[in-house]
Amino acid sequence: MPGRRANLRASAPEDRRRRAPGGADPEMLVRRYREAVLAEMKAVLAGRRLPLYDMMRYHLGIAGPKGEPTAARAGKMLRPALCLLSCEAVGGRRRQALPAAAALELIHNFTLIHDDIEDASQSRHGRDTVWRVWGEAQAINAGDGMFALAHLALNRLLEVGVAAPQVVEAARLLDEASLALCEGQNLDLAFEERLDVTRDDYLTMVSGKTAALMGAATAVGALLGGASEDAVGAFKEFGRHLGLAFQIRDDVLGIWGDTAETGKSASDDVVARKKSFPVVYALEHASENDRRALHRIYGAGTVSPGSVAGVLAVLERSGARAASEEAAACHVEEALSALGGLQGLDLVPARRRELEVLALYLVRRHR
Amino acid sequence: MPGRRANLRASAPEDRRRRAPGGADPEMLVRRYREAVLAEMKAVLAGRRLPLYDMMRYHLGIAGPKGEPTAARAGKMLRPALCLLSCEAVGGRRRQALPAAAALELIHNFTLIHDDIEDASQSRHGRDTVWRVWGEAQAINAGDGMFALAHLALNRLLEVGVAAPQVVEAARLLDEASLALCEGQNLDLAFEERLDVTRDDYLTMVSGKTAALMGAATAVGALLGGASEDAVGAFKEFGRHLGLAFQIRDDVLGIWGDTAETGKSASDDVVARKKSFPVVYALEHASENDRRALHRIYGAGTVSPGSVAGVLAVLERSGARAASEEAAACHVEEALSALGGLQGLDLVPARRRELEVLALYLVRRHR
Repeated sequence: MPGRRANLRASAPEDRRRRAPGGADPEMLVRRYREAVLAEMKAVLAGRRLPLYDMMRYHLGIAGPKGEPTAARAGKMLRPALCLLSCEAVGGRRRQALPAAAALELIHNFTLIHDDIEDASQSRHGRDTVWRVWGEAQAINAGDGMFALAHLALNRLLEVGVAAPQVVEAARLLDEASLALCEGQNLDLAFEERLDVTRDDYLTMVSGKTAALMGAATAVGALLGGASEDAVGAFKEFGRHLGLAFQIRDDVLGIWGDTAETGKSASDDVVARKKSFPVVYALEHASENDRRALHRIYGAGTVSPGSVAGVLAVLERSGARAASEEAAACHVEEALSALGGLQGLDLVPARRRELEVLALYLVRRHR
Repeated sequence: MPGRRANLRASAPEDRRRRAPGGADPEMLVRRYREAVLAEMKAVLAGRRLPLYDMMRYHLGIAGPKGEPTAARAGKMLRPALCLLSCEAVGGRRRQALPAAAALELIHNFTLIHDDIEDASQSRHGRDTVWRVWGEAQAINAGDGMFALAHLALNRLLEVGVAAPQVVEAARLLDEASLALCEGQNLDLAFEERLDVTRDDYLTMVSGKTAALMGAATAVGALLGGASEDAVGAFKEFGRHLGLAFQIRDDVLGIWGDTAETGKSASDDVVARKKSFPVVYALEHASENDRRALHRIYGAGTVSPGSVAGVLAVLERSGARAASEEAAACHVEEALSALGGLQGLDLVPARRRELEVLALYLVRRHR
């Protein structure tokens, strides 16, 4: 249905100017599902009393380092929200997908525990990272345990009446995404040492690192909501492009975001020599002098704090920020087209609108 | 059937004197399944060309560090052999369980990649460990990828005609074992700092660290071979006790084994302050003077190479070696009782005999 696609594309720029089209507040939208997902994760952890689970509860913001209760300070839970909203959008009931939503959040968090070791990150959300509290060996092991637990969480689908073939298919989608995530992380780490990273290389890396799990979130939601194979494919494409947009926005916030809001310093990514979208853009499009400057700074092995300002100046001059924002917006449009372009896909109107709200929020968020 | 149990118990000591009762060679038995499992793992990896998979192929002994083909030098593949033999013992066909056997070996190997980082082990089977070649960050990530791949390997069960409910149940058994493995590893790492580790603590730790995955191997084999729920439970108990015996034997070889055969130095476990069975036995049963000596050596934070001889002398004097061998033998008897004690469990006689051969081999092996 090219007409519908064109229509969605045309309306996108207008939508982008409004913070909450249709009156829906994207942050409230995410919060709508958050309590249910948190309760489901707590149920998966219930009765598990060994010290291993104290580490998991700590990372998830459910407990302090000694296992003592603490004010729940969980993440945004964007992936579970996308999963549950996709389930409802195709006419399914939320609780049918809730175990998968919890599994998604556990998978995401297991990768964060390991990422923090891999990137030597000291803190997350203002608290010491798991490896800082328990040491690297225990943190690697706790991440592994959380990945196993994610699979057991998925098994609770049987208890809410999902048939075994759908459980197997949901597991397959999540495991393919998890493997793609590791492929992407492998490239991301390897890119730190490289200066010849192209936009295509970047997209390959981010397709794994970020987009695959978002694509699995929306695909599994649609699957468990009872969607057809074609519709599940469209939702996967929707989530995948959202993931690309999300990561590019993350890259922008990582450099130009407000540290107080993002909790990340602008220099972190530069010092780690991360080949984020703006950097890759500048490596390809900056003036010859500026590109030479980038090569000199990144090629020195370690980036000194004093060189960070130099990198930022090159990024500004090359127009990397506008190009990044444009690229993120394009992927949101592609995402919306994926949902709009499928013949016979009859979505619940209110939920469809909310998916669009959430999609637009991802490229506008400030944290 | 108490009579049958008693009979198996009584016959065990005699069996233990013969290297290969019934004429079967345990090492040939393991080799019988090895080629098929290796081929299945290669099939799971087929077409995967990203650098991430070079790391996996290297660890599995399929390739060199640059991805170049190398003489296959895989591990013993004991868990897959137990799985396939259990499948055949209940009357199933080997290929029905082959994807699960490959998944088991991938899970086991993902934990080895991470263990080598956690224990700072430099080499395995005479080659540099994965983290030594690619660094810790990449090695953590490659292990994660192998865990995800193990789940995708399991999905191939659908292709050999296994029904979805059995696939879900096989996945559940493997994931519960994987989680138990992390529980055990968490305790093992924590025990390094402790001197009050009791025999019960040790058994709790090893029940997770080693026994759970062996129990899953035999249980999943029986499940996929079409066994009843009770029989699957008996096979799980069989594998679990085999795992306990296997680990205690491993502990003995780690201290008194021939370094040329085991590839491990006697001092490794002592220097790492591992609370292996002989050490736990000595901490509980050595003379007061000797126990004081152990506390002094282990309590100093790091164990100097010069103190290793002191620990070994205490272990010898306390009778830790004989006690360990007796404990391992007891668990093999328990394992055989689990299979012998189930009413109406009609096993294929030749395969049952081979399971017994394999069980006895585990407590007699020298590497």
